[in-house]
This record gives sequence, C-alpha cells and structure tokens, in this order.
Amino acid sequence: MNFSETVKSLSSLNDSSFYHYGVESIPFPSVMELKEIVEICRSLLFPGYFGKSIIDKDALLYHVGANVDRLYEKVAKQILAGLAFTSEDCGCSECRQMLNEAAHEKSAAFIESLPQLRELLETDVVAHYRNDPAAHNAGEVILCYPGLRAICSHRLAHRFYELDVPLIPRIISEMAHGETCIDIHPAAQIGHSFTIDHGTGVVIGATAILGHNVTLYQGVTLGARNFPQEEDGSLVKGIARHPILGNGVVVYANATILGRVRIGDDAVIGGNLWITHDVEAGAKMFFKKKVLAEVDGALFI
Amino acid sequence: MNFSETVKSLSSLNDSSFYHYGVESIPFPSVMELKEIVEICRSLLFPGYFGKSIIDKDALLYHVGANVDRLYEKVAKQILAGLAFTSEDCGCSECRQMLNEAAHEKSAAFIESLPQLRELLETDVVAHYRNDPAAHNAGEVILCYPGLRAICSHRLAHRFYELDVPLIPRIISEMAHGETCIDIHPAAQIGHSFTIDHGTGVVIGATAILGHNVTLYQGVTLGARNFPQEEDGSLVKGIARHPILGNGVVVYANATILGRVRIGDDAVIGGNLWITHDVEAGAKMFFKKKVLAEVDGALFI
Amino acid sequence: MNFSETVKSLSSLNDSSFYHYGVESIPFPSVMELKEIVEICRSLLFPGYFGKSIIDKDALLYHVGANVDRLYEKVAKQILAGLAFTSEDCGCSECRQMLNEAAHEKSAAFIESLPQLRELLETDVVAHYRNDPAAHNAGEVILCYPGLRAICSHRLAHRFYELDVPLIPRIISEMAHGETCIDIHPAAQIGHSFTIDHGTGVVIGATAILGHNVTLYQGVTLGARNFPQEEDGSLVKGIARHPILGNGVVVYANATILGRVRIGDDAVIGGNLWITHDVEAGAKMFFKKKVLAEVDGALFI
Amino acid sequence: MNFSETVKSLSSLNDSSFYHYGVESIPFPSVMELKEIVEICRSLLFPGYFGKSIIDKDALLYHVGANVDRLYEKVAKQILAGLAFTSEDCGCSECRQMLNEAAHEKSAAFIESLPQLRELLETDVVAHYRNDPAAHNAGEVILCYPGLRAICSHRLAHRFYELDVPLIPRIISEMAHGETCIDIHPAAQIGHSFTIDHGTGVVIGATAILGHNVTLYQGVTLGARNFPQEEDGSLVKGIARHPILGNGVVVYANATILGRVRIGDDAVIGGNLWITHDVEAGAKMFFKKKVLAEVDGALFI
Amino acid sequence: MNFSETVKSLSSLNDSSFYHYGVESIPFPSVMELKEIVEICRSLLFPGYFGKSIIDKDALLYHVGANVDRLYEKVAKQILAGLAFTSEDCGCSECRQMLNEAAHEKSAAFIESLPQLRELLETDVVAHYRNDPAAHNAGEVILCYPGLRAICSHRLAHRFYELDVPLIPRIISEMAHGETCIDIHPAAQIGHSFTIDHGTGVVIGATAILGHNVTLYQGVTLGARNFPQEEDGSLVKGIARHPILGNGVVVYANATILGRVRIGDDAVIGGNLWITHDVEAGAKMFFKKKVLAEVDGALFI
Amino acid sequence: MNFSETVKSLSSLNDSSFYHYGVESIPFPSVMELKEIVEICRSLLFPGYFGKSIIDKDALLYHVGANVDRLYEKVAKQILAGLAFTSEDCGCSECRQMLNEAAHEKSAAFIESLPQLRELLETDVVAHYRNDPAAHNAGEVILCYPGLRAICSHRLAHRFYELDVPLIPRIISEMAHGETCIDIHPAAQIGHSFTIDHGTGVVIGATAILGHNVTLYQGVTLGARNFPQEEDGSLVKGIARHPILGNGVVVYANATILGRVRIGDDAVIGGNLWITHDVEAGAKMFFKKKVLAEVDGALFI
Repeated sequence: MNFSETVKSLSSLNDSSFYHYGVESIPFPSVMELKEIVEICRSLLFPGYFGKSIIDKDALLYHVGANVDRLYEKVAKQILAGLAFTSEDCGCSECRQMLNEAAHEKSAAFIESLPQLRELLETDVVAHYRNDPAAHNAGEVILCYPGLRAICSHRLAHRFYELDVPLIPRIISEMAHGETCIDIHPAAQIGHSFTIDHGTGVVIGATAILGHNVTLYQGVTLGARNFPQEEDGSLVKGIARHPILGNGVVVYANATILGRVRIGDDAVIGGNLWITHDVEAGAKMFFKKKVLAEVDGALFI
Repeated sequence: MNFSETVKSLSSLNDSSFYHYGVESIPFPSVMELKEIVEICRSLLFPGYFGKSIIDKDALLYHVGANVDRLYEKVAKQILAGLAFTSEDCGCSECRQMLNEAAHEKSAAFIESLPQLRELLETDVVAHYRNDPAAHNAGEVILCYPGLRAICSHRLAHRFYELDVPLIPRIISEMAHGETCIDIHPAAQIGHSFTIDHGTGVVIGATAILGHNVTLYQGVTLGARNFPQEEDGSLVKGIARHPILGNGVVVYANATILGRVRIGDDAVIGGNLWITHDVEAGAKMFFKKKVLAEVDGALFI
Repeated sequence: MNFSETVKSLSSLNDSSFYHYGVESIPFPSVMELKEIVEICRSLLFPGYFGKSIIDKDALLYHVGANVDRLYEKVAKQILAGLAFTSEDCGCSECRQMLNEAAHEKSAAFIESLPQLRELLETDVVAHYRNDPAAHNAGEVILCYPGLRAICSHRLAHRFYELDVPLIPRIISEMAHGETCIDIHPAAQIGHSFTIDHGTGVVIGATAILGHNVTLYQGVTLGARNFPQEEDGSLVKGIARHPILGNGVVVYANATILGRVRIGDDAVIGGNLWITHDVEAGAKMFFKKKVLAEVDGALFI
Repeated sequence: MNFSETVKSLSSLNDSSFYHYGVESIPFPSVMELKEIVEICRSLLFPGYFGKSIIDKDALLYHVGANVDRLYEKVAKQILAGLAFTSEDCGCSECRQMLNEAAHEKSAAFIESLPQLRELLETDVVAHYRNDPAAHNAGEVILCYPGLRAICSHRLAHRFYELDVPLIPRIISEMAHGETCIDIHPAAQIGHSFTIDHGTGVVIGATAILGHNVTLYQGVTLGARNFPQEEDGSLVKGIARHPILGNGVVVYANATILGRVRIGDDAVIGGNLWITHDVEAGAKMFFKKKVLAEVDGALFI
Repeated sequence: MNFSETVKSLSSLNDSSFYHYGVESIPFPSVMELKEIVEICRSLLFPGYFGKSIIDKDALLYHVGANVDRLYEKVAKQILAGLAFTSEDCGCSECRQMLNEAAHEKSAAFIESLPQLRELLETDVVAHYRNDPAAHNAGEVILCYPGLRAICSHRLAHRFYELDVPLIPRIISEMAHGETCIDIHPAAQIGHSFTIDHGTGVVIGATAILGHNVTLYQGVTLGARNFPQEEDGSLVKGIARHPILGNGVVVYANATILGRVRIGDDAVIGGNLWITHDVEAGAKMFFKKKVLAEVDGALFI
Repeated sequence: MNFSETVKSLSSLNDSSFYHYGVESIPFPSVMELKEIVEICRSLLFPGYFGKSIIDKDALLYHVGANVDRLYEKVAKQILAGLAFTSEDCGCSECRQMLNEAAHEKSAAFIESLPQLRELLETDVVAHYRNDPAAHNAGEVILCYPGLRAICSHRLAHRFYELDVPLIPRIISEMAHGETCIDIHPAAQIGHSFTIDHGTGVVIGATAILGHNVTLYQGVTLGARNFPQEEDGSLVKGIARHPILGNGVVVYANATILGRVRIGDDAVIGGNLWITHDVEAGAKMFFKKKVLAEVDGALFI
C-alpha cells in the first residue's frame, strides 16, 4: 500500500502545539520511570509491604540506603524532564546546568521529606483501619486498600507540587486515578488521618483544603461551582473555587460539595446530597424522610 | 494430587458457546496488539508526546511513515481476527482470502482517516484547555488528561465501528474504560470540541448523539430508560434509546439523562439531576434551593 | 549527596506495624502471581477465550489438565503466603508443615470447585447477554464486558473467602476493582444469573446478600448505613450491615441502598434513589414527576 | 542533524539481493520462536529437566499433550516461513494454501518422530555418562553438558533437514553453535550413542557420516579437503566431501580429519593429528614419541 | 490433528531416569536465578563496573549491604535445589529442615568468602593488564575481557564446589563456557594472578592444579590422557588425571598438555605443542625450526 | 544472618581501581544499548533480514530514516559514556559540553559511513556464498552464518575505533566473540570480500592487516609472537606484532600464524600449520606426506 498522502498530511506539523519537539536531548518525563519512583517510595514508606518482601532487620538500613541512593538520580532526571518541558531553556550549557542543578536540589528536598510523609501516612493507615469494620489489621490496609494507595500517591504528588515541579505531580495523580478511580488534584491540601473508603469516583479539586481526620466515601465530589470566564470565553485560571472541610468532617457516598464553601468541624454530610453553601460545625445533614415519603406511592426512603 | 475428575468435568465442553474453538488458524483479536495499535495511533496523532519523545524535525516524516507502515499490517491482522470471530468463514482458501482482503481494505481506510481524526482531536484538546482552570497548557492536556485519553480512544474505536469491524471497537472502548473509568460505547456519535472533565463514572450509550462543544463532568450518564422486551423476556436489540445533546450543552457532575430525549443547544444540566424528558435550547436546570430548604432542619443546599 | 540522616530516620522502624518483617522465608502474597492465577482460572472457565486462543478439540483435555496441575502448586504457594501473614507461625518445622498442608488442602478444594463456579458463570454470561441490547453474542460478553470480568473475579475471590484464606480474596477483589471500577467485597453472597451493566462505581459491601437474577447498573451502592462505634471510637467489626436483595431485583444507575434492608423479589429501584428502608416485593420505585415539577422553573424531569 | 543523503543512499536498494522484501504477509522465520520450539522439544524429550521442573506423575500426560498441541501450530508457522523464503510463491491463495498444507504436514511428521528422537537421545545420555569420569549421574549430563545440548539440537535440526524444510535446520544449528561452540551441519548423519566431550571448536561438515558409539573431543574437525571450483571460480556445491567414521571411533582433542576419507570401526585418532587418508578399523594413531624427541633440545613429548 | 499416539508414547516414562520428578515441592536449580546470582556477585566484586553504574561513595555501603542480603536467600534457595536433586530426601519435614539448614549454612559460608575471592580476582585483573599489550587500563579488563569473566565465574563455581554443593558449580561453569568459549571444570585448582588471553577453546580438566602467575592462550587444553575403564567398559571415576602447572608457567595458543604430568615453575610451552610428559622448571619448548624445514618445499616455520 | 563484617570489608574500596565511581551523572556504556545499536545497524545494512521482516518497498525510506534518527542519539549517548570513562572530565559544564559535542560529531560520522560499510559487507556476503559449497543463497549467509555476523560486528567496531571512541569498539567485539566464538580485535584492518568459515576459535590480533579476498577457516590464529617487556616486567604496548596477509590468502583450519610476518598474495596456508616467518606470494604450504609417513607404524597422514 502507498500511504504517501496520509504520511505527508500527518507530518505537516511545523509550529503546531500538538507536536512536541522536546528540549534538545532532554527526553520527556517517563511514565514508566515515575511508576518505578512511586514503587520505590512505597517500599521506603512501608518496608516489607512493597519491594523486597522479606527484609532481615539487620539489613533494613542497607536496603533503605540503597533505595534512597537510586531514588536521588531517578527523581532528579524526571524533575529535569518536567522543568525542561515548561522552561524557556535555550539549550546552551549554562541553561542546561541551571536546570540540572535545580532538578537535583528539588530531588534532594523531596527525599528529605520522606520521613515526614511517612508520619502522615501512618496516621492515614490508622484512620482507615478504625473506619472500616471489614479491615482485619493495618497490614491489610497498607497492601490492599485503594483509598490508602491513592492518598499515598497524593502525598508524594503534592510534595512535588510544593517543590514547584511541573507536570510530574499531575502524571502521578493520574496514575493513581487510573489505578484507583480516585481523582485528587495534586495541589489539594489534606490534613493527617485521612480516610477514603471504596473511593471509586471521588474527585477532589485543586484548591480544596481538608482538615485532619476527614473521611470520604465513594463518589464524593469536592468540586468547583462557578467558572468565571475570561473575555475570550475561556475560564479564568487560578481562583480558589473548591470547598474547605474542617477537622473530623465525614462525607457519605456520592455527595457533591461545590464551590468555595466551608464545612465546619465534625459536620456529617449524608450520601447523595448536593451542597453549595457553608455548613455549620457539628451539623448532620441527611435527606429528610418525610419529604421523601410524600413522593407518590412509588418512592420512599 | 489427582484431579482427573475435575479435569474431565472442565473439559466436557463440546458444542458449548462458552468454549471458543476459533476459526482454524486465525487467532483471537489480541488485547496486547490492540494496546500497541492504540499507542502507535497516539504517537501519530500527537508526535513527540507519545512514542519516541524527541523527534528531530527533519526526521518526523520518517517516523510517521514507518509507523504508518507498521500500523497497516498490524491493524489488518486484528481486523481479520475480528472478522473471523463473527463470520461464517468455512476455512477454505476462498473464504480466507475474502476475509483477508476485506481486512486489508478496512485497515487502509482506517489509516487514511487518521489526518481527519487528528483535526477533530485538536479541537478536543483546545476545548479541554479552555474548560479547565487548572490546565497550564495544551501539552499537559495531551499527556495527562483522562478525558482526552478516553475521547482519543473513542474516536479510534468509532472509526473501526463505522468500518463495520466487529469486536475490535468494543475491546478498545473497554481498554479506555479500564484506564480512565470513562465508558463510551464505540457507536456513540460525538461532535468536535468535546470535553470530559475528571471523567470517572461517565457512561455514554450506544445510540447517543452529541453535538459540537459539549462538556460533561464526572459521573454523567447518558443512558437508556426503557428496555422493551422480546416475547422471550430478552431485551429488544438495536432501538435508538439514548439521549441527543445539541451543540454547546454542558452537563455537570453525576447528572443522569435517560432515554431518547433531546437536550437543546447550549442547555446546561446541573449536577445530580435526573432527566428523562426533552430540555429546551438554552435552558439552565438546577436543583431549586427552596425545595431543598424545606427539608427538615438538617438539609439545605 | 549524603542522605544519612534521612536513611537513618527511614530505617528506625523496630516494632512498628508499618514495617513487615515477614514470617521467616515465606514471602508475601504476590500480586503478579495472583494475576496469573486469575488468568489461568479464566482460561479454564472459558477455554479459547482466554489463554491459548486456538485449541484443537482433541487437545482440550491436555490443556485443561496441564493448567489444573500448574494451578495447584501456584495456588497453594499463595495461600501459604496468606496464612503465614496472619498466623502465629513460630517458624519451626512443625508449624511450617502444618501451614503447608493446610495450604495444599485449600488449594485442592479451590480447584475442585471450579466446575461448579463455571456453571454459575455461564448463567451470568447468559444474563448479561439478555440484559444488554447492545450485546451481539455470548462471546463478546465473555471477552469484553467489565461486569462479567468483575463477577468472575468475585466468584473466585469469594471461593477463597469461603475457604478461610486470608488476604488473597481481598487482593483479587482490588485487582478487579482497579480494572473495572467495580468494588465487590469478597464476602458478599451473590446468586446465579447476576448482571452488572457498565459497572463503574458499583460498590457491594461485605455482608450484602443478593438473590438470583439480580441486575445492577453503574454507580449502584449496596452499602452500610450505621457504623456503631466501640468505646474507643473505632467501628464495631463483623455486624451484618449491608442490604439483602431478593431474586430478580433490578437497581438502576447511581441508586444507593444502605443498611441491613430487604429489597423484595422482583422489586425495581430507579436511578439515583436513596433507599434506607425495606422495599416490598414487586415494588417499582422512581422519582415522582410531580414533586420534581414543583422545582422552580428550571427543573423538570 | 540532517542525514537525508545517508538515508537516501541506504534506501536505494531496489532489486538488490541484500534487501529482503519477504513473501507478502508471511514473515521471516523467527529466531525467538525457534528458540521456544527447541525449548518445548527439550521439555518433551526430557520432562522435568526442562520446562516445568516439578511434574506430578498424574499430570505428565496433560503437560505432554498440551506441549505437543502448542508445538504443532508453532512449528507449522516457522516451516511456512522457511518454505516461503525459498519457494516461488506468487502470493495467490492457491500457492498460499499449498504452502500452508505442506507446512502442516511437515510439522505433523516432525512431531510424530519425537518418540524416536528420544530413544536416540537416551543412548547419547548414557554414552556421555560412561565416557566422562567427572559425570555424577545422567541428570547432570542432561542438564549441564554442552555436548548433549548440541547433539539434541542437531537431532532436531537434522529431522527438519530430512523433511526438506529450508533455513530452519541451519538456524537451529547456529543457535546451538552460538551456545556450545559446537558446529554440526544439520545434514550430517550421526548414529546412536554419540558423545562430544567439552566440545568447544568441534566442526562436523554437511556430508559427514558417523556410525554408532562415536566419541569426539574438543576442537575436532571433520571437514572438507578439496573444494573443486566451477568455471566462474565459485565452489561446486553438493559433492560428498567430508569423512565417514565407523562405529566406535574415538577422535581426541584438536584432531583434524579432512576429505571423503573412511575411518574404520573402533579406530582411535590421537589429539592434534591431521588425517587426510583412510584409516583401518581398529588402528590407534598417535604422534610417535621418537620423532618428537628428535626436535632440538627444546621439544619432547 | 490428533497426536494421541505420540502423546502416549512421550508420556510413558515411569521409572525412567530421563524423566525427573523432582523432590516434592523443591524446584530445580534455576539457570535464570544462577545468572542473577553471578551478576550480583560481579557487582559486589567490582562495584561500579557491574550492576548500578554510578554509585555515590556515601552510598556504597548501602548497596553492598543490600546486595549481600538479597544474595543470602537467593543462594540458599539454589543450594537447596542442588542438594535436593542429589540427596535421598524423603520429603518429611525433618529431612526438609535439615536440607534447608545446610543450604543456609553453605550460603553464609559462600558470602563470607567473597572478600577473599575479590583479593584473588584483583590479582587476576592486574595479571591480564600486564600480559596484554592491547589493554588500556584495568577497567577495560574488568568490563570486556572474556578471560577475566571466565576466571571470575570459575572462582565462584569453585567456591561452591569446595562447599560440597552439587550441580550448581557445573551450571555456573557451563554458563561461562557458553559466554566465553572457555571451559574450566569447577573442581580445577588455580592460583592467584591467572591470565587467559582470548581464551576461545581453552579446556581445563577437573583434577588440574595451576600455580600462581600462570598464563594460558586460546585453544590450550589441560586434559586427561588415559581413561582407565571399569570392567563394564565405563570409565573409572575420580582419578587424578590432569596436569599440574607450576608458578609462572606460560602455555601458548592451541598447545595440548595431557595426563597427570608436571610442568615445572616458569616453563614456557610453545603453541600447538602436544605434551604428555613432565617438563622441567624453566624449560622453553617450541617446534624446532630445522625439523620443519625438512618438510618438502612447501613447509617451513 | 548478620554479615556486617563481610559488608564492611566489601565496601572498603576507597581509591581502588577495582571500584568505578563513574564520571558524575554519566552512566557507563550499556551492553544492552550497544546490542540494540548493533541490531539497528544490521537492520539498516540488510533491511528485511533484520529488524522488521516485511517492509513494503514504498515504506523502506521511512524505516531507514526513522532508524537513522533513533541511532543518532543512541550512538551519541554511548560514545559519551565511552569518552567519559577515559577522559579527564572534571564534571564542569564546559567539559561536559565539550564531551557531548564530540560524542555527537562522532555519532554523525559513524552514521554517515554506513553506506560505505554496506558496500564492504556486500562483498563479504558474496565471498561467503562463493566459498561455501553448502550455502544455498545470499539470504542464508546473511541470516545464519556466524562468519558474516562476526565480520559485520567487526566492521562496525572498527569504524568506532577509527573515530577514536574508547571502550565501545572492544565491547562490540566481545559481544560478537561471545555469540560466534570469533575474536577479532577492533583495530585489525581487513579488506573487502572477507570470508570466515565455521569460525569457532578464530583469533585476529590488534595490529593484523588483511588484504582483499582473504579466507580463514575455524581455529586460525593471527597472533603475536614476541612480547617485549618493559623494565617492570609488563609488556610493551602499541608495537606492530601481528601478521600481514596479502590479497587472496587462504588459511585452513587451526593454522597459527604468529608475529609481524608477511603472507604474500594468494598464498595458501594448510591446516594446523605453525607459521612464524614470511611466506612468498603464491606459496601453497601443507604438511609433507613423506615426513608424516616416517612416523612409526601408528601415524600417517
């Protein structure tokens, strides 16, 4: 077959933003490498659960040290790729060295924050165990629970976000989204002891802020309500537009909370609710039985 | 252990439709191959973003040409497998040649439509970028957004559907469904500049028709409402049973639109709504605050 | 870079439950191995659809026999890993032999139940085909439908659950959850001829009981309503807390049924409903049009 | 970089025999596939030593049957590729079907001769064990000895040669050559109970004929002596030009036997000898001490 | 095709030594695993040259420690497989535990001898560098020289041999033989500062003993001369039958030294010689020019 | 097990030349990458025989162009690694850029010489076909003959040698040595129409020079004879010490030619000969029958 017309058409891409030339000789961030980075982090955060499954106590230090060393260059390389994707790098050796140094600094800062991330994640494990009557032990939570998996990825992605690394946070978030059906924007701020049960369909927007001890069930959306437009019709970027949840808030399955609303400490939002205004601390909101009972013949709850 | 009884029982399958003998010497469509085909298509549609990440401008023609050539036989082979699965191929050399020629014609037609698919997908990228305040640039959309990924797979699957290729469209759809939690039937007709934000849980049925510039948020179902039954109790196949959305329609998170209803141009359907009748062009439908305020004490929105 | 402080901090884990030492020389259950086990089971349950795609009728017995033989040791090894994870194995040769014998017995029992599982799954295939107007044939259901995939994994996981195997059932469930966005707890009891259409977001809790011929659409939750707390604030474990669905029940998209309620035979639950009380047999529950019509101007259904 | 001249030059290949277009849609024989075919054969010839290492006695029949079934199509496909490489196949469906039928017949004939090949190879194992004082048991010979490995590959390659399959025999020979440094032309005829010790550098030419119970040590060449030329200077093809070794012949390390000479039964050829004439049955040929002693001062043997 | 006769014939193997049942639930030594073990050893012996290629000085301890920890269980598992292959293990838990303990003891002893093996190998590297005018530096020798590669494998295999581990030493030797065409029996005893140049075709027999600073060129055989037979015609096993080379001996290409002869310190054996008697210390043996000059017209050296 | 002493001992490597720290952030040359580079070159030199086996004539340009583009960066990266291994790179950005530019220049020069290398290799293919009575066609030579494989690798390695690239040439040579048992030093100069038959054990030294139309059989050594020593006992490096073979020379199996001798045009060297002096053009040297006949009783040739 001769496809020369098709080939010519598909190759006519000069100056198109849909064709990425790449900064010279710096390849794109690699999804495969980022998967491995997340796996190494998991094995550092929960040794024996991920990575090598039998670790002699005498050898733990070695494995941790070797993984940290592997991580350092791997992370730096991906950060460099992320920086190059968005920077105005001219390809000269000065620009290149500057990017490379920035990448290594950010990589070191990321690694140095792992002990703190582990402390946070330990509170998340405990929270999951306490909140799920079906959980047998902490190990089961660490190994099997998609909620914990998503939170772990989020905390890593959020750390890259805080370090002003482009692209990488989003790729890690989407990897977790694909695996767990839980979609947390890497910019979202989340306190300790966070639980997501089942998790399918959870969406947490970029400017959402969650306190400590928050619990979300499947299908919960913490989304934006208004999308103010620029004059050209595109949406205004960068506005705080997602909810703020206080400490101890519980949101049951498929509830939707939209806009920059505040849900007070220890409030409970019932399943399938649609919330677009503030909720007082301690409020317990559910569908009212009586209203539902009015529904003709067929409907009662 | 002697499992001879179990083995015998599991092997007693003659004439069962749950045991597939396969058309002689034509293997089944391969999920692995179809994954690779989709990946090659992605690298043709968005060069530099997928596949080889650094492409010299002088070499783009070569890479496109080589990928098109690889694609031609790969696609023909999978189409042949799909045709053999459903055809009444008797295994003779005439039948075989006929199937093979059909497969190659369809493969060529598929490839020749790629430039047109790219034009469509470019409108989708622009739409996503404009509709998401958190998007930094078109590249981030192409690389990371599950909505765009699902739409890209859909446009490829739909093209195979239009070419009357059996099985392959569905397998591609389900691959995208597994990756993105977005479930678009390959038969669904979708206009240009389509956006799906977050996307988890979106379901678009087989006979749905969407205009241009449509935007859907997570959890939106465009489904069937009635399932007329055959006399034997099974459902009647092939009836138009899913919604028609006009140009510019926006459907917010978790709304459900069921049946062959028409949603007029530029209508906006609020989150969590349940729509089973036509909606006028330009209508903006949301839960009414007052009704919700009636709910006893605990519930307001 | 010198990360000795970080390494030291990450290695200071003695006596932490977040560090798994493993029972001496018995590795952890392997997700890779369990994936392969599920794939072998699928190829035994639906030969020709999974595994080797062209099987000569004369050779079916051999392939089945060889796969059963491979399965026996593979399954026993994973069960042993699961038992070791939770047992109080002291590492002595007696404990070890006892665990090993138990693992082999359970593996044999699992394999011997495969013919029965296939009978069940054949009813599920038929049910999916009859319930989806877009399905062309049983083969397409077996190959492509995420609902069937999830049910197949559930029936395997549930069998391991019945055999008192720890961890393995949950890992298999979460593998299916990740692939299909359908989250069925392995303990859930489900009758024959079960259909899940589209499936994204379906959640079925641990103590749920479903009769025969049940049909669920996407986003349906069969969840818990009350979570009685222990004195220490953690949730009481092991209480029957999920719904019981009779034979022939249909639940449409995004409906939520919570608590130990009974949905009578042949009841139909409309989409987006929120059910927390019993429903009579034969009842057909939908949103009442009139109530919705009251909603101001913008909302009608 | 712009390499357009180089690319143009490297692509200017029309009508060159150094550029292989391939018979339309029949790929080349695959070295990977042939490796796997040889591995499957090894696991059929010596079950438990190659392939699955623990085989329950009750399951042996199943594994053998499943492997034979896999082998049939795999072998047929490679034979077809070999036939297509050399045939004057015009690409029409009749030619194609004829080639395909021939390939399947040859594949079946190959498989049906495996039991006989195993009988031969069992005599080779026994011979190796008896001839090597360092061998501990038959299993060690089967698992580790390069001589046996090379002979096994040769017997398989020779069977393909007898079936008039082009290319495949040579590829299998060269695979064994690369692994063991033993170079046996697939056309060479070799009796039972054959031993090659160490083996590095052994060369056995295409028209060589070896009786039963022959033993060769490393570096032995059974080669051609004269290469009669065609008028154009190229060598005449197809002449019997390699040695004939009787039963029980032993040839020690690095001896070279050239031309269509006959080495009588039970003759022993000493190391490093250069033989270009017939040798009587029972002769024992070694370097004569006296001659060597003549060598001045420095040389004695 | 129906191959039931062939399958039946190939499965009729009861009580044949050509069918390995395996000790129950202990798999065979794995060539793949042994390859990885040798690679890990290489990375421990020459860090930075094999395994991870960039190692921060601060991280070397971690990588070494982690590799030693990985090695311990891996080696123990392969030793166990080797022991089970030859032991009279009855499969009871006592036998099993005894084998397992022995395997772990031998693994520990192996690992503890690695520092000493490295000292030896350092002398080999220096010797290769000094003996090859084409070598640029020690690093090139470590990375590229097949002689060093073969010696490294031999020193590892020999250590397993000293620890009375069955099978494993031979498999490691044959792996090196296949890679380098150098065939050193694992039982051979070899002093420090050993050089093999080019190496193709070198054969060193089981009972050979080599002093320090020995240099061998390609094609050298240190073999057996007499093979005394048992009454049944098989060869007597276990006799010292290979040469003893003193310190500083050099043997040039393709020389053959056979039998339990002694080559004195610093002797030099010329290429292509055939030696079957002792050689005095300091002797320099070459083909005598005059003798060769006698050869009629055509031959002189 | 606690191996802290062993770990400490294996880690105590500061300032040892047996521990390679690597030039900062430039990894070692990768054997895997070099294998792929050689494979891509083979597919450029003999399209359709290596790499993609079915290439449409219309698509050849694309495949060649795409492979050339892939090759450019891959080769540059390995050259950079080779340069860094030996250079006195201080790690600063100027040094780094200089190395990088040199690497890209050498990569471009390498690629631009491929058309010329193909012309040479075509003469080698023709020579092999003419010299082997068992060869059926040029394709068989290209696909299967280890001699051609080794020569192809040599011509690539020699090109890197000419470009003053360190390490890479040697690694490519040793890869070919391991695969074919043919050991050609990358510095050796070899004319067109070169044949190596069988090839096992062939050794060609660094300073050897071979004319056109040379033919070598297995086991031929073109080696060094004298190794002048430095005062410290190590060998003097860089002296011309290997033979020069004229045009049309044939050397039969296992002959050894040592030292800087000249073998005149069209000379024929018989098997197993040992040559250390010049040979006149046209001379035909073989063992003299008469001399051999003198050997007592047992030996005649």
